[in-house]
Amino acid sequence: MEKIICAGLGPGDPDLMSLRAARAVQGARHVAYFRKAGRQGQARRIVEGMLAEGCVEYAMEYPVTTELPADSADYIAALNGFYDDWAARLEKLAATEEVVVLCEGDPFFYGSFMHLHVRLRGRVEMEIVPGITGMSGCWTATGNPITWGNDILTVLPGTLPEDELARRMRESDAFVVMKTGRNLPKIKRALAKAGRLEAAMLVAHGTTRQERIARVTEMAEGDCPYFAIVLAHGGLKRG
Amino acid sequence: MEKIICAGLGPGDPDLMSLRAARAVQGARHVAYFRKAGRQGQARRIVEGMLAEGCVEYAMEYPVTTELPADSADYIAALNGFYDDWAARLEKLAATEEVVVLCEGDPFFYGSFMHLHVRLRGRVEMEIVPGITGMSGCWTATGNPITWGNDILTVLPGTLPEDELARRMRESDAFVVMKTGRNLPKIKRALAKAGRLEAAMLVAHGTTRQERIARVTEMAEGDCPYFAIVLAHGGLKRG
Repeated sequence: MEKIICAGLGPGDPDLMSLRAARAVQGARHVAYFRKAGRQGQARRIVEGMLAEGCVEYAMEYPVTTELPADSADYIAALNGFYDDWAARLEKLAATEEVVVLCEGDPFFYGSFMHLHVRLRGRVEMEIVPGITGMSGCWTATGNPITWGNDILTVLPGTLPEDELARRMRESDAFVVMKTGRNLPKIKRALAKAGRLEAAMLVAHGTTRQERIARVTEMAEGDCPYFAIVLAHGGLKRG
Repeated sequence: MEKIICAGLGPGDPDLMSLRAARAVQGARHVAYFRKAGRQGQARRIVEGMLAEGCVEYAMEYPVTTELPADSADYIAALNGFYDDWAARLEKLAATEEVVVLCEGDPFFYGSFMHLHVRLRGRVEMEIVPGITGMSGCWTATGNPITWGNDILTVLPGTLPEDELARRMRESDAFVVMKTGRNLPKIKRALAKAGRLEAAMLVAHGTTRQERIARVTEMAEGDCPYFAIVLAHGGLKRG
């Protein structure tokens, strides 16, 4: 019985991968990664040029993305079947081979790997290599610390209702909003209600060549990549 | 004019340093790091065996730690003088030499480097290399994902009043409490009030040889390292 290594690859720049993750990637004979059908996928893109010759690749392509509402029973059933299927395939493969699963960011922080992890635990040995989170790549790109001393930091999904977003923004010294994209107009209104609109930044693809940083007030609505995050820096309690 | 590189070293295991940070450390001719007087210091410990021969070390030793209350004017004045002094010394050094400042974790996430950064910005070129946070090392060590899907994650300082801690714990899917130590009895009471005591974990020195993981309910009071964190996993909204 071999094992599955889930390698956290960090925020996007391959140079920000950990030494351990880089070694796992370079030594891998079997790598698996999630992606949308027809795309290269962010995890695979990060390791471009690093895989050994003859390394076998398993692209785990999501069966559905935007065709079905994300909270519909059909969507959830399709995704569950997809994860069940890949868990079974990787379990079988790991009986004789070590498999490296590539994951952008930090695998245990909103990562997709956890859907395999919850299915395989107790059945396959797994090793998780943590990574630098995407949000860390983004706040580092802004050139300003996100949190100081006794700051409270909140990580919020942009899917929350507007008033709840506003309340939590108001009550946090620093915050990060994930899942922006089509939620940006609502997030902007919540920022304004919380008195945090002027200073809020939007960062997409932090640390990569596609990096983009703007004040939220400067963003045209409808022009927000889904993976962009909105962040407000703390440190306001300092003298 | 050379520059200052602040190298985020990650949670403790040197193997979890990024490729870029490792290169900066190994190539450094001048390294500076914070530590308590008389201690080796966590940042310096992480790079043990990695520094080049002849590398000059600058141990920036905090002038005061527990002798004065942390909110007293004397304490704040002493710390400000200390940061001013080191900012001036590093600025002078960086006029002719590249300097690598070693920082555990992720420099812009509650890091000490930001006290130099705020003093040196606009005066010296600085490059910040993000790192894996200490909390990420800790939740990875628990073997369970910290956040799923639309979870809200809150990072709380253990110095908050008990009722505020309890309220914020109750309102978060997942949370991390920093600065535990002597605050542990209060944190335990807050966890109980929030209905989160049973599942809460305490992790110290995640990813290092001193790693220690326990349920909070199993911790004897008075037996909590200051740098331990308390965490409660999300994922409760999953079916």
